[in-house]
Amino acid sequence: MKFNRKNIFISKSAIIGENVKIGDNVTIYDNVTIGDNSIICNDCVLGEPLNSYYFDEDYRQPHLKLGRECLIRSHCIIYAGSTFGDNLQLGHRVTIREKTTMGSHCSVGTLSDIQGCVSLGDYCRLHSNVHIGQKSKIGNFVFVYPYVVFTNDPTPPSNICIGATVDDYSQIATGAILLPDVYVGKNCLVGANAVVNKNVKEYSVVVGNPAKFLCDIREIKSKGKEGFHYPWMNNFSRGMPWDEIGYEKWLELNKNYESKND
Amino acid sequence: MKFNRKNIFISKSAIIGENVKIGDNVTIYDNVTIGDNSIICNDCVLGEPLNSYYFDEDYRQPHLKLGRECLIRSHCIIYAGSTFGDNLQLGHRVTIREKTTMGSHCSVGTLSDIQGCVSLGDYCRLHSNVHIGQKSKIGNFVFVYPYVVFTNDPTPPSNICIGATVDDYSQIATGAILLPDVYVGKNCLVGANAVVNKNVKEYSVVVGNPAKFLCDIREIKSKGKEGFHYPWMNNFSRGMPWDEIGYEKWLELNKNYESKND
Amino acid sequence: MKFNRKNIFISKSAIIGENVKIGDNVTIYDNVTIGDNSIICNDCVLGEPLNSYYFDEDYRQPHLKLGRECLIRSHCIIYAGSTFGDNLQLGHRVTIREKTTMGSHCSVGTLSDIQGCVSLGDYCRLHSNVHIGQKSKIGNFVFVYPYVVFTNDPTPPSNICIGATVDDYSQIATGAILLPDVYVGKNCLVGANAVVNKNVKEYSVVVGNPAKFLCDIREIKSKGKEGFHYPWMNNFSRGMPWDEIGYEKWLELNKNYESKND
Repeated sequence: MKFNRKNIFISKSAIIGENVKIGDNVTIYDNVTIGDNSIICNDCVLGEPLNSYYFDEDYRQPHLKLGRECLIRSHCIIYAGSTFGDNLQLGHRVTIREKTTMGSHCSVGTLSDIQGCVSLGDYCRLHSNVHIGQKSKIGNFVFVYPYVVFTNDPTPPSNICIGATVDDYSQIATGAILLPDVYVGKNCLVGANAVVNKNVKEYSVVVGNPAKFLCDIREIKSKGKEGFHYPWMNNFSRGMPWDEIGYEKWLELNKNYESKND
Repeated sequence: MKFNRKNIFISKSAIIGENVKIGDNVTIYDNVTIGDNSIICNDCVLGEPLNSYYFDEDYRQPHLKLGRECLIRSHCIIYAGSTFGDNLQLGHRVTIREKTTMGSHCSVGTLSDIQGCVSLGDYCRLHSNVHIGQKSKIGNFVFVYPYVVFTNDPTPPSNICIGATVDDYSQIATGAILLPDVYVGKNCLVGANAVVNKNVKEYSVVVGNPAKFLCDIREIKSKGKEGFHYPWMNNFSRGMPWDEIGYEKWLELNKNYESKND
Repeated sequence: MKFNRKNIFISKSAIIGENVKIGDNVTIYDNVTIGDNSIICNDCVLGEPLNSYYFDEDYRQPHLKLGRECLIRSHCIIYAGSTFGDNLQLGHRVTIREKTTMGSHCSVGTLSDIQGCVSLGDYCRLHSNVHIGQKSKIGNFVFVYPYVVFTNDPTPPSNICIGATVDDYSQIATGAILLPDVYVGKNCLVGANAVVNKNVKEYSVVVGNPAKFLCDIREIKSKGKEGFHYPWMNNFSRGMPWDEIGYEKWLELNKNYESKND
């Protein structure tokens, strides 16, 4: 019942892979590449021109590349000048600006706003309504929950832009704010509504405003069963590459995974 | 000047009540029922297919039912598989996923995101930009203010999903976060930016991160006049069923109201 | 590649200035004026009818006035009955309701929601996803960062609506909440996720929930160079009227600037 291609606009310079489905009212601007088997739902805009398009006569549209098997739900706006790996999944009304790079198997929830000049690794999940400021860096297997904000100006307003960094496997809970230039290590949990104003060591749980160390994440018990929940990779695998073989086995087979990104 | 039905798509299996107005660029998918006298503004999507639509060849579209006299403002997306009572009012760009049930006379503000598997009673008001996680339960006459989030995963990420519950007449102020599985009793007030990590007894005011008991709600004085403001039903009636006769009188005539929902 | 005017609707009573560009799927209702050289991107709605349009047979559409050189990015909804100065810049999916007035050179970021009955001076910057409740007042050169909320009901729910006020040059950081009726003086900095429940004196930095005085803003050192950052006007000029001559010189030439608004 979808994908009628009614009232659509597709630039002649766009390169659309095999078996790509395109919904109604979709606009695809110049210099966009979409990988095979991707699904672009109704009312999406791919390759939204950058700000300079409006004012610069010599504007040149940078390339937007979407990988294979992507699912872009309705009403998303993705600017020109970004690169996404395979299996990207977007919710509705996501906005992603230029110079964003994402690895493979990332997902971004409804209404999230990625301000551009941002990098994400593989298998990251940004939930609904997340705001990622420019110059933020996010590793692999990082989960970011609703209404989290990554900021970047230490003395607003200023000409300084220094994003926050979150390393592999860390969890940033609902409503937390990362202040500019902070580094959150691997396997951390930042609590709901926390305001992180200094670096967080690996395996830490921090909570409050300003965020303070609460405990080692490995002390948190599983809810409703014996044992400890973290590192979570042993207890959660839906959509993860270790889903069939378990994290330990997968890690053994992928020893280089982390180092490739360091 | 509206309701020209330009560039619309309405499935043949949709059942549209009498005197329903439908705006431009509206999409109504299979198996949608709209009650009489409802207004569907421009660019709305009713019966958005579930995720499995994209991957399951045997996908069957569940039923979406909207009651009578609903006002759905522009750019809303309502998934298939939910049921809404009469007099629903939505702001702009609301997203509501499957398995949501709402009683009558509910309203949901601009940009709110209801994640599905959620139940609301009657006369609830969710303001702008509220995020209701799956498995949340909301009673009757509950007001939820902007940027509130109902969460559901106690040890993220995990396979556990236990929503929060808010009972009748309670008020959840701007930016508050309800952690998974908490129960907020009747007639409570959760303060702005509070993080609620344990149950809240009826008539309590809680504030802070983590939220702590501040006072009994019945001690809060009315602003600008004599007396106490709470229980608010004696001091506020706009849009409420007791608007013409007063709360006490209405309650007498509706003694079974609460018990019907317990 | 834009501005094809495909699938558009423009009321015959709209007054469109010279050299105005209009994108696809744009709707312009009755009684809208757009100043010269403005750009209205795809899918915008200008002059959205007020609520009473749906229920009042004698509805009269109030005037919407946009100044010259405005840039309205895609998917914005601006209600009838507001007035904007020149050089307004909007992000995507902004919603602005009736009885809003803005001076010149204001900008409002993606997803922001301005509830109407709000006034802003000149050169204000509301970033992404800001929520400005009714009856809020914002001076000149005020910056408001993502997820900030201006509230207006001291005892929710009630019939009282008293907005917050922020005076010239002040900075409201990410996630802060201004409770009803508070006044934030000139040259203040409200910290991230702060909850402001009483007035803030000029030159104050306040943080926390509830917000408490932290220090005088003039004690904050510049990041990465000698000296103090605030008042910021000496250290930041991008897009400001003193960009070419410096703040001190500009102030000398514009001594009446502040008093005109008091």
